[in-house]
Amino acid sequence: MPAESAAGQAGPTTAPALGAAELDALEAHWRAACYLSAGQLYLRANPLLRTPLEPAHIKPRLLGHWGTCPGLNLVHTHLNRIISAWRRPTVCIWGPGHGAPAVLANSWLEGSYSELYPDVTRDEAGMDRLFAQFSSPGGVPSHVAPQTPGSLHEGGELGYSLAHAYGAALDNPDLLVACVIGDGEAETGPLAASWHGNKFLDPLHDGAVLPILHLNGYKIANPTVSARMPREELDRLLRGYGHDPLYVRGTEPRDVHEAMARAMDTAMERIAGIQNAARDAGLGERPRWPVIVLETPKGWTGPATVDGVPVEGTWRSHQIPLAGVREDPARRRELAEWLLSYRPEELFDERGAPRDQVLACVPHGELRLGASPYANGGLHTRELPLPRLERFAVPVPGPGRSRHSPTEVLAGLLADLVAATAERRDFRVVGPDETASNRLQELYRATGKTWQEAVLPVDEHLDRHGRVMEVLSEHLCQGWLEGYVLTGRHGVFSCYEAFVHIVDSMAAQHIKWLKTAAALPWRRPVPSLNYLLTSHVWRQDHNGFSHQDPGFVDHILNKSPDVVRVYLPPDANTLLSVCDHVLRSRDYVNVVVAGKHPCFDWLSLEEARAHCARGAGIWSWAGSGETGREPDVVLACAGDVPTREILAAAALLREQLPELAVRVVNVVDMTRLLPREEHPHGMPDHEFDALFTRDRPVVFAYHGYPWLVHRVAYRRAVHDQLHVRGYKEMGSTTTPFDMVVRNDMDRFRLVMDVVDRVPGLAPRAAAVRQRMADARSRHHDWIREHGEDLPEIADWEWQPSSPGPSGESGRQRTDAAGGSA
Amino acid sequence: MPAESAAGQAGPTTAPALGAAELDALEAHWRAACYLSAGQLYLRANPLLRTPLEPAHIKPRLLGHWGTCPGLNLVHTHLNRIISAWRRPTVCIWGPGHGAPAVLANSWLEGSYSELYPDVTRDEAGMDRLFAQFSSPGGVPSHVAPQTPGSLHEGGELGYSLAHAYGAALDNPDLLVACVIGDGEAETGPLAASWHGNKFLDPLHDGAVLPILHLNGYKIANPTVSARMPREELDRLLRGYGHDPLYVRGTEPRDVHEAMARAMDTAMERIAGIQNAARDAGLGERPRWPVIVLETPKGWTGPATVDGVPVEGTWRSHQIPLAGVREDPARRRELAEWLLSYRPEELFDERGAPRDQVLACVPHGELRLGASPYANGGLHTRELPLPRLERFAVPVPGPGRSRHSPTEVLAGLLADLVAATAERRDFRVVGPDETASNRLQELYRATGKTWQEAVLPVDEHLDRHGRVMEVLSEHLCQGWLEGYVLTGRHGVFSCYEAFVHIVDSMAAQHIKWLKTAAALPWRRPVPSLNYLLTSHVWRQDHNGFSHQDPGFVDHILNKSPDVVRVYLPPDANTLLSVCDHVLRSRDYVNVVVAGKHPCFDWLSLEEARAHCARGAGIWSWAGSGETGREPDVVLACAGDVPTREILAAAALLREQLPELAVRVVNVVDMTRLLPREEHPHGMPDHEFDALFTRDRPVVFAYHGYPWLVHRVAYRRAVHDQLHVRGYKEMGSTTTPFDMVVRNDMDRFRLVMDVVDRVPGLAPRAAAVRQRMADARSRHHDWIREHGEDLPEIADWEWQPSSPGPSGESGRQRTDAAGGSA
Repeated sequence: MPAESAAGQAGPTTAPALGAAELDALEAHWRAACYLSAGQLYLRANPLLRTPLEPAHIKPRLLGHWGTCPGLNLVHTHLNRIISAWRRPTVCIWGPGHGAPAVLANSWLEGSYSELYPDVTRDEAGMDRLFAQFSSPGGVPSHVAPQTPGSLHEGGELGYSLAHAYGAALDNPDLLVACVIGDGEAETGPLAASWHGNKFLDPLHDGAVLPILHLNGYKIANPTVSARMPREELDRLLRGYGHDPLYVRGTEPRDVHEAMARAMDTAMERIAGIQNAARDAGLGERPRWPVIVLETPKGWTGPATVDGVPVEGTWRSHQIPLAGVREDPARRRELAEWLLSYRPEELFDERGAPRDQVLACVPHGELRLGASPYANGGLHTRELPLPRLERFAVPVPGPGRSRHSPTEVLAGLLADLVAATAERRDFRVVGPDETASNRLQELYRATGKTWQEAVLPVDEHLDRHGRVMEVLSEHLCQGWLEGYVLTGRHGVFSCYEAFVHIVDSMAAQHIKWLKTAAALPWRRPVPSLNYLLTSHVWRQDHNGFSHQDPGFVDHILNKSPDVVRVYLPPDANTLLSVCDHVLRSRDYVNVVVAGKHPCFDWLSLEEARAHCARGAGIWSWAGSGETGREPDVVLACAGDVPTREILAAAALLREQLPELAVRVVNVVDMTRLLPREEHPHGMPDHEFDALFTRDRPVVFAYHGYPWLVHRVAYRRAVHDQLHVRGYKEMGSTTTPFDMVVRNDMDRFRLVMDVVDRVPGLAPRAAAVRQRMADARSRHHDWIREHGEDLPEIADWEWQPSSPGPSGESGRQRTDAAGGSA
Repeated sequence: MPAESAAGQAGPTTAPALGAAELDALEAHWRAACYLSAGQLYLRANPLLRTPLEPAHIKPRLLGHWGTCPGLNLVHTHLNRIISAWRRPTVCIWGPGHGAPAVLANSWLEGSYSELYPDVTRDEAGMDRLFAQFSSPGGVPSHVAPQTPGSLHEGGELGYSLAHAYGAALDNPDLLVACVIGDGEAETGPLAASWHGNKFLDPLHDGAVLPILHLNGYKIANPTVSARMPREELDRLLRGYGHDPLYVRGTEPRDVHEAMARAMDTAMERIAGIQNAARDAGLGERPRWPVIVLETPKGWTGPATVDGVPVEGTWRSHQIPLAGVREDPARRRELAEWLLSYRPEELFDERGAPRDQVLACVPHGELRLGASPYANGGLHTRELPLPRLERFAVPVPGPGRSRHSPTEVLAGLLADLVAATAERRDFRVVGPDETASNRLQELYRATGKTWQEAVLPVDEHLDRHGRVMEVLSEHLCQGWLEGYVLTGRHGVFSCYEAFVHIVDSMAAQHIKWLKTAAALPWRRPVPSLNYLLTSHVWRQDHNGFSHQDPGFVDHILNKSPDVVRVYLPPDANTLLSVCDHVLRSRDYVNVVVAGKHPCFDWLSLEEARAHCARGAGIWSWAGSGETGREPDVVLACAGDVPTREILAAAALLREQLPELAVRVVNVVDMTRLLPREEHPHGMPDHEFDALFTRDRPVVFAYHGYPWLVHRVAYRRAVHDQLHVRGYKEMGSTTTPFDMVVRNDMDRFRLVMDVVDRVPGLAPRAAAVRQRMADARSRHHDWIREHGEDLPEIADWEWQPSSPGPSGESGRQRTDAAGGSA
């Protein structure tokens, strides 16, 4: 089949894009990459087939994927060509992550591999290592991975390439981000939504994304939807996504090279046209960016048939087209034939190095895809100009005297940060249409929301250059931010707590990336990925059961402790302090859970800083009877609503059982509860025991699923005395206090827990218990009649234990007991 | 703006679709529904405004969403019309789940509400209750939810409506599934992918899906992408998805009714044409099904402006357009004006019942949307004709003598089940392109893979009517299966274990649905949603780190214990027994984790059944020195690879420390480890203690994250003696045994754990420890040299402790100790 290259609607042009020498060189480069790809799959010795292939030359286990490699090699070869011609910084997102042999081959050819891994030299010995290490014990993974030069995307879990590409292109006006999308990946939801990234790409300040949809026709075992749908439907679909498609299709390599070169040239010209127009003449309507549709056979140039069954061009070439090569001499001959069909002697010199012709298209220095500093984002990272927190901190005349919405307070800091980075353009806030709902709307005094479509008079805050990105897709928010931070910039993802589970798997993959990257000396630390989870489980008054899920923390805490951090600030000032910390951090995934509804202010900024530095501490002003002796009971809390209920319980106990020595402990950093061996923030036992005692009853009100506290604390001495209240899957609820009552985390229940657990309280315990039970029934009846919480609940305020003349006594400083972190 | 209705490419027709009386009736029904929707948001008394509106009539908290209601009311009204005309069973998936007031209003109007909730009568008193209960304590949620008649989809978390619609339509050839997709939801990934559901819908055996994309222009705070993109792009996009669009657009109600009636008529005619053609003349190419694009203002007919600011037609009408109504008399007048603009006196008679004109379009009996038996799927559920397991069970002459791939064995059962339901068509297997990769390919002896696109000679197993559904989208697999089981049919979702996290949030929402539905007496039990998680964490030799994640079990076990079940069968026969059980179950989410690689057969079918019935039990044949006394150590295991390693450790201990009394316990049902109060399967303490002892060291090899075992067992007496090995986030690995070594779950490490924990073993402990450490280093060096596991590992087999003449002695029956479940 001859290749076609249809340059959009204008119809194919006919003048050749390539001179004969250039075509020969591109073809040689591509053959070399294909040879090296196949070699990695099969060989552990004799890399240039200088001697007849023997069983000992073959890997004992054949673990890799051939199907996608020839297409990726074609793309890489032609990216080399246009990078050399346009001298434009470029990264490529390799969606088909199984195509590591291709990307590694190209990196080795261009020399970037040997620069990062000097033992894998660009000669026969290095080729031998390149082959042997691939997907072998102690070697490199078979996916494009952090170990792969030039990569910022692992394709193991499919669906995120195009979102990553957009994230990388944002605020990098000179950058070209090519993105190879496999036609398998194209079936996923996140990828399907990602096409609309072009509605958010600012041609003035952002770089260009060039999607290359690779139709190789098959997944593991099936044809793909996009390869098999009628061509006119695919064309409509891509135009419906707002793209202007260019088609390259063929099976004859030289024809395809010609067509691909023409399509690449056209794409580059169109991109330049769009950007020049925007940058010279100002922004017009949203541009129609090019997309290349590349249709080549799966496993192209591999064995056409095996035992008479078609392999090339079918799903059978997805992984290892020829199996049993070590054992079967006939298969071994087929492999040798296949490998020699690339004519390695023309491609590599006697030392095993690539010949000049092979390298003719390869760009130099940082323009090489494997050497792009954009793909090692930490090289570009600048410290954020974080404003002084004093500007935003709320005054706290005494604990529990005032209320503020923590996220509203934080919005001031974020707005200032946006303003301070207005020129640098290296900080963004993403969220699924919830920035204002999450009470972060003060951001709009500093910026607008990115939007490249038409703007109507009734719209607010839409801006072609806005720093807030809103789209109703958690997948896109996450994918964009991952691409953004992996290229060295900073950001926050603000999300409804329940719906962040939508990106559970993406978060896990990002954590795995960071974990692996941190072990590579050449990878520089990148800004952390920061979640602000709000509209949380305890305040879903009108949204109900479907909006209640505090389990993201559980998911995250299953992952690498070197990477994950979890914070539950109890009020506005602690939220400020926590966010100041996480925005300075590197290489972490920080999860910050905070409410948007007004909640009591407990700590001044200074106290909040000290408390956050420790991560957990005794609030001695909230306890009673702490006179150096061990308390009778510890009331512990983590999260804003649990903290309120624990303090209300402490107040009730002070009133009902004044002789009881009660200690209140608040936890901000959940990982402090872990053993030191399990997390770098984990407390040593002596510190834990100093906070929680070794043997007193501990009643712990926790923001999420209660067993998480047991899971982090099960090795502690006091564990057998630990009683945790938290969220249970109880169904809908419709007033704020009813939510805590239904989950048995209300002040009355907590007091009942205490009287049930502290020995020696009978007979008074029964009376207290009864009063608490009465209060709970009163609440139940009241809300059904009035639709609102009891006034004594709604209007409850913390009272200092012994108010003095200034109204400030009874307030003691946040205690440092147990602190050492 | 006059309404347009463009009937696809043919251009708009002009003859009116509606006579004047019919138009009046439709308009009256729609006004009634809008009145009732607004009433639910605001009123707790005086539902027909028979007296002037007073503060006491207004709800104290206004919790609901108005914006989407008028559009949903329009759709419901016109669905009523075509259902009456075509008498075709219909369900509607209400994507904008916040639109519960609309769906509840319609259900009350048609009478289905009062039939299910007799206290909410179709008169003024019932209207009063309808209003008062909405989003109020003890009332009904503000989302379309299980409580909502006719619903099988909760829109709290957006993105799944269209996948649910396709799932409901499968194998229901007479059913019409209308599906309202909000333009906010349309931005999500799962929804974007769901449009391709038409590539899998068989016009012969499946019903029709009629998507209605509702462009009301705004999300919470932003314009929507699909409402703001140029119309010709949207048209291309929908045609690219394979649909034939019909447009309805307007702001004048009567014009819109006319246009909507015409579009609905056209859609129904086209659907009938497609289905008749397929059923009479045979299948041609994939049909282009209609889609309706309905463009009406957000908050249509609500307050146009409030304080001079536009509200109708903007995002400001998303929730409560008029706030402060209770406090502010002027606002209250505006509300009264708004409500009276619907002319309730024309709509409801003196008793408060809807007048005849209002009900003229409403269908009768089970044709009413709120009374459809399809939306209460348990009414249609039939027992599966499960074949006898003996047909598929593998013979087990003795434990560990043979190996089988558990999933391959299971495939036989699934294939037979497909064959046995070939006529009934109520069982499907879904998966993301992995059915064969997961070694379930025997299914293809009984059926093919659903595929409505072209089929090429090289393709295999594609079939217009196949019972296996493969698409590279876990979201679609999950969404389809949810729709399928909620309409009463059966299915299995086979998935790579790591990537099932992609649907974490969908699974959680389905569990919440089941939990809520189970409490509603009128909802009948539906078949369980069954996960077969395979290609699991311990065998990702070539896929590496990105494919390692056993955390779905943790996620699931956070959810309602009434609904969730988790099974880890250790071999082929136990997998058969577990699957036989889960396929018979109702209203659960069953998670079954099983390997696809050959693993040792431990139990005969009979033993497997007994073991699965208990869920956990002592394998006395694997232990040593059990002579009635308590063991010195308990070796426990859950999962196929952990079971192998524990048994290998037991064999090593028998050899190295023959005097040690070792008990081996295997756990199939993880929820048995929970306390009885926390899960219906939970063991009472005496049973747990009989298995694990109260005070002996327990070394537990677990399939997933080790702390899960602590989380389920922390209340047990033996907990302080419990030492768990499991998966850690360690990065890539490339041989099967290296995986367990790197995670410290290998036999040698387990033996070291035992010698470290059993008191009194010194001085021999040190020597054993050293031998184990030596074996581990030998392994490390060997795989680096040979690329494969040590022969002593690869060829290891279980040896009975004292082989007798038949080779069968030494084998004892699976012990019943501790069993009672």
